[in-house]
Order: sequence, then C-alpha cells, then structure tokens
Amino acid sequence: MQKEMLNFDYYNPTHIIFGKNRLEELNQVIPQDKKVLILYGGGSVKRFGTLDKVKEVLKSREVGEFGGIEANPTYETLIKAIKLVKEENYDFLLAVGGGSVIDGTKFVAAGALFDGEPMDIFGSGIGEKRPITKALPFGTVLTLPATGSEMNSGGVITFVEKKAKLGFGSAYTYPVFSLLDPELTYTLPKRQLANGIMDAYVHVMEQYMTYPVGALLQDRYAESLLQTLIEIGPAVIEEDNHDYNTRATFMWSATNALNGTLSRGVPQDWASHSLGHEITALYGIDHARTLAIVLPSLLNVRRNEKHDKLVQYAERVWGITSGNDEEKIDAAILKTREFFESLGAGTRFSDYGLGEEVVDLLVDQLERHGLTNISERGDQTLEVSRQIYTNAL
Amino acid sequence: MQKEMLNFDYYNPTHIIFGKNRLEELNQVIPQDKKVLILYGGGSVKRFGTLDKVKEVLKSREVGEFGGIEANPTYETLIKAIKLVKEENYDFLLAVGGGSVIDGTKFVAAGALFDGEPMDIFGSGIGEKRPITKALPFGTVLTLPATGSEMNSGGVITFVEKKAKLGFGSAYTYPVFSLLDPELTYTLPKRQLANGIMDAYVHVMEQYMTYPVGALLQDRYAESLLQTLIEIGPAVIEEDNHDYNTRATFMWSATNALNGTLSRGVPQDWASHSLGHEITALYGIDHARTLAIVLPSLLNVRRNEKHDKLVQYAERVWGITSGNDEEKIDAAILKTREFFESLGAGTRFSDYGLGEEVVDLLVDQLERHGLTNISERGDQTLEVSRQIYTNAL
Repeated sequence: MQKEMLNFDYYNPTHIIFGKNRLEELNQVIPQDKKVLILYGGGSVKRFGTLDKVKEVLKSREVGEFGGIEANPTYETLIKAIKLVKEENYDFLLAVGGGSVIDGTKFVAAGALFDGEPMDIFGSGIGEKRPITKALPFGTVLTLPATGSEMNSGGVITFVEKKAKLGFGSAYTYPVFSLLDPELTYTLPKRQLANGIMDAYVHVMEQYMTYPVGALLQDRYAESLLQTLIEIGPAVIEEDNHDYNTRATFMWSATNALNGTLSRGVPQDWASHSLGHEITALYGIDHARTLAIVLPSLLNVRRNEKHDKLVQYAERVWGITSGNDEEKIDAAILKTREFFESLGAGTRFSDYGLGEEVVDLLVDQLERHGLTNISERGDQTLEVSRQIYTNAL
Repeated sequence: MQKEMLNFDYYNPTHIIFGKNRLEELNQVIPQDKKVLILYGGGSVKRFGTLDKVKEVLKSREVGEFGGIEANPTYETLIKAIKLVKEENYDFLLAVGGGSVIDGTKFVAAGALFDGEPMDIFGSGIGEKRPITKALPFGTVLTLPATGSEMNSGGVITFVEKKAKLGFGSAYTYPVFSLLDPELTYTLPKRQLANGIMDAYVHVMEQYMTYPVGALLQDRYAESLLQTLIEIGPAVIEEDNHDYNTRATFMWSATNALNGTLSRGVPQDWASHSLGHEITALYGIDHARTLAIVLPSLLNVRRNEKHDKLVQYAERVWGITSGNDEEKIDAAILKTREFFESLGAGTRFSDYGLGEEVVDLLVDQLERHGLTNISERGDQTLEVSRQIYTNAL
C-alpha cells in the first residue's frame, strides 16, 4: 500500500536579511533598549574584520564580547558564557560566525533562562532532558554556510569529558534574524567551503533518502537542492573565485537544506549524523568529513530499506537511466562518493589513518548514547551501525 | 554581463497546521481570551459541514459569524464586516474558506484598526494609499487550495462600482496560523479544482518567467512546483478521486506557489495578473481562467524579453530538447496552453464569447489603474498590453 504523507506543522519566524552591504541594518533589527553580547569563535572574524565592522555598526550601544567558541562548541566553554550573561544582565545575543557559534549561542540563549542546570537540557546519559520553555532573543551574522543553524531552532553541543556530541532544540531557539551576506564567505579557506557543501548535501539526504510517502513536491525540492550543490560545488571550492552568484547560491542552499522546507510531511533518517558525531567526538575529524565517510557506506548497507528512493535519486539527481535497479543504486552511491572526493574529502576511515580498531569503540559510543534503534523506521540497530562503520574502513 | 541575485528579506511567521483530523487544535491556537468572528463565503462551508465543525470545536467561546464574502471579495461587503468587528469588539478573526475569504479577512483585520478610511489602504485612483501599520490577529481554515493567501500577507479586493480589482499587503497581515486539511478539498467541484491548479501554476510563472539572475536554487524550486502541478493536475480534477496524497500535494503546492519560497532574490513579473484582473472586473470571468487567457499570449508577445528563461522552461519543465530556441519556445507555449485546456479552461477570449470589442475597454482599465509600465523591467507599456490582449482573441 502506498504510504501517506505525514501530518506536519511548519513554523519558522526567523527574519532573513540576505545580500550585499546590509550590515548597517543590524542597528535597526536589534531593539534599541537591549544590552548586547556578541559571541564568536576563533580568530577569523577578527582577522578578516567582520567583528570590527559589527562593533562599528553597534557603536552607540552597550556591547560586550565573548570569544573562543570552538569548531565543535563545548558545554565547558558555553557555561562560562551563560555565567557572563547572567552576571552582566545581557538581554540580546548576537552570534557572529558559522554553525558552531550559532549553535553555541542558541544554547547560551536557552541556558541563561533555564530553570535549573543547563546540563538538564540534554538526555542520553548527560542530564535529565527537561524542555526549554524560554530563551533570550538572539540574532546571527553568518560567515560560514554549512549547518543551516541560522534558520532553524536546533543545535549540537560537545561534552569534552564525556566524549559526547548531543543535540537540542525548541520553539524558543529560532534566531530573531539572520544576516546572510555572501561576500563574507570570500575569505573562507577551501577546506571550510568544501565542508559546507558536504554538510548541506547530507542534510538534504537525511530528509530525502528514506521511503516514498507521495510527497512529490518535497521530493523535487530536495532533488533541486542536491542538483544545485552538485552544480556549484566545483566553483565554490575555488577559494579565489569570488563570483557573487556562486557564493549567494551556496549560502542560500545551505540555509534551505535545514530550514524545514524539505522535511515537511516526510520521514527523516539522521543516522549518518548520529554515526558521524561519534567519529568527531572520538577522533576530532571535521563534522562534514565524518558524513563523507558514513553516508556512502550507509547507502550501501541500507540499500534494501531505501531501495525506492535510491533508484529515484539515481535517476533524477544523477541522471542514471541505464541498468537494472541494483546497478543504478551502485552507480548513484559511486557518484556520491566521487562527489565528496572531488571536494577533497576522504570517504573511508583509512583516508584519515584509522583502521578496524575504531569499530568497537564507535559502536560502544552509540550504545552509551542510547542510539540503538535509529533511522527513519527505527530499525538501524547497533549491529547494522557496526556494518556501516565496517563497510567504511 | 551576468546579472546578480537581488538582495532580499524573508520573513513568514505563519504557523502551518497541515494534515488530517487537526480541526480540534483550533481551540488551542486561538488564545482563550479572544472574542472570535468567523468569516466565510457562500453556502459551501455550510452545506459541507465545515462551518458546523469549526463552531463545535469553539463551542466553549463567544463566537460570531459573518457570511457572504464573494468569490471576488468586494469592498462594499467587507466594510460591513469592519463595522461589525468595531461595534461588537471582536479581537480575533477566523477565515473559513478559500483565497477570497482569506483575502477579505485580511482586509477586515487591517481595516478594523486603520486610522481613517479603509479605502485609503489602496491607491490607483481609489484612495490615498497609506500604509497598514497594525491589524487584528487572524487565522484561517483553508477549504480551496489556489491563491496561497493562507501563507502570505497580501490580498486583492474588488470595488464593484469602480470596476477595479486592487491589491494590498503589509507585514501585519500574515495569518497567525493556517489549518490545511487536504480532506476538506474532497467536496470541491471540478471547476474549482482546475482553477486552483491554474492559479498556482501562474503564480509560479510570475516569479520564474523573467530573466536569469544566477538564482539556481530558486529556479529549480520553481521548476519543481511546475512539474508537480503538471504531474498531479489530471488526478486533482477528478472530483471523485479522493487519493489523499494527490490532494495533499495539491494543497501544499498551492501554498508554496506564493509563500515567498520562490521569489527570494529574483525579479518578478505579475503582468498576467494585472491583465487578468481587468478581465474579471469587466466580465466576471473566474480569476484563474483569465490567467489561462493571458499567460500563453503574454509569453508569445514577450518572447524576446523572456527568451533565456523561456528556453530553460521548455527544456527543464517540458523536456523539450529538439529544435532551435524559437522552436523550443513555441513548443513550450503550446504545451502550456494545452495543459490549461486539459483542465477544462478556454485560453482565448473567443472561448468565453468575447471578441475584439474587449481590447480597448481593457486597455482603458489598465490606464485608469496606473498599470502603464508593468512586468519585471517595467517595460510592458499599454501598447504591449494591447498586443497581448489582441493576441488572445
């Protein structure tokens, strides 16, 4: 029997301010009576002058700074920001950076108003997992297109001591606004540009590569995004290619990959992310590169469960029309792997100097975090995850 | 020189509640302290029981009713609703119906709080055109997918005496929520189903069929929507075909055709709508059918200005790959015309018993309403509009 489209809600109140020369508008979209804390990461927003430009726009206000949010933002760092916000009574947060800084800022926004220990926002053996019921308002200035965090309400936080990477979200943690200036990507190194493309690509796949439910429009939207990323990928990773439309399309595609447009009414997987997070937590490999390791292997191991959508993906996204279904699936998985490799990412553990010793450790991590029945049907057991890791050696 | 993607803002706070058996949730999403006025159109929401179901869900509250909003909602009727809202102090409006009822409700929401004469919300020789700065909150229960009004902030109002059909909009006239239950479309007659498909199709074309600005994702999204409407059109207009996914895809496609997803950063035309509105105002032909008359003719007359996108449309939406550019364009226009005709709509004035006598009268109307330099470049003069009307005889 044909499955039916799922019931859904869609609510996304974030105001997107997209384009060139719009930084001045920050002073209008942050209410005048707010005391603003600017949060950022390492040195790049300083080095390339973005932080100075933001401060110049807000110079008539009382503004504080909190730097040093990591590429995988840690609880240990963010709890310091929460303390600062409370002590100094900041009541508006401004994230200047990529997805890590934005995720971190979301956690600070929620944690500063959380009743009890912010640790308890999380479950999975970390805390009590109690819901977020309020958060400070915050905006973002995006410098690195990748995670889509600028237009959704979720985030992922790393717990250093516990070697865990866990998600959170709520209706209260949408950015009030996000300022997206494609020219801010002109200073990004190739590695981060490539990571952004792959991160967005796998976000789409998590929402698309499941089983059909007659969601014809959502499927075509997802295929649009995959085709666009494939089309622009080679030009995006040319560091010195400052073609505006290429970077604008990259930025808007990464936002659309995870702003709710693609996921309405369809099942979602997210197992590649679960398996990838454990790799980053244990070995510190870039998030996007862990996805490049996991996804091709997962598609291969889960080819029966995902059969119908894999054939559709082969035909519509990659234009593969010859061969039987299994041959189309093989060709599509190979194309996917080659696409990631063309962006400079290894797609096997061996490309990162890792061998079969990782499998038991990673599976143990999944078990510890309760990730024992994942994917769109909840049927990806630890044994299946073990096969996926093993298939990626 | 390649044109650049335009700067844009995106803000759409409407909460979509989509799916089966969700009517009960109305009682949660309308704040308990509000005095609610339900607005509706003719008899169909009564005849098919939707109005009774809504009233049953809200039975614990103080609820009023205002019926009789026309298929092309008139100022003359809506001003009575505004009077009622003020006299009885209603502070939440609930539209139950299609785009006409929702457009009308938006105008009532804005008009009830407007400083001065609600007529002055409009320009074009009707009023002073002063901005909307506040509006009553309102929600919608959509029964007829077509206009997209359920997830945007605009509306179109008819002035009977002045034979005018004019638009308005503001940041204050987004629905707070819209409840979209595809099963509510099961009672619609074929004519309205066909109109909905065509209306949504032309909405997409107004945002897509201009000139390229390197907006690769927005182009593919628009093509996705056109392909989806072409794919489901034949099944949608089978009145008795109550396949849930077909109707769900129809409903969500019509919403997406005009909720801002497609128009970000790209030029827009809307000349088919301007020319069509005058036909409805003078001859009372259904809005969607006026678009079916105007669009194929407009594409033909404007084939040079829209050359690049017409070729892209031919290739990607209709799969036309043989012939030179002009032949592809001819074939795509013919396919478009045939699609509308397959839905039961005439695509020439003669199909509606009208002849060349209409042209002068329609052009006069355009002039009276200031529509003398329209389209994406503002270069569609009255003379060009005359050619388009003439080409559609």
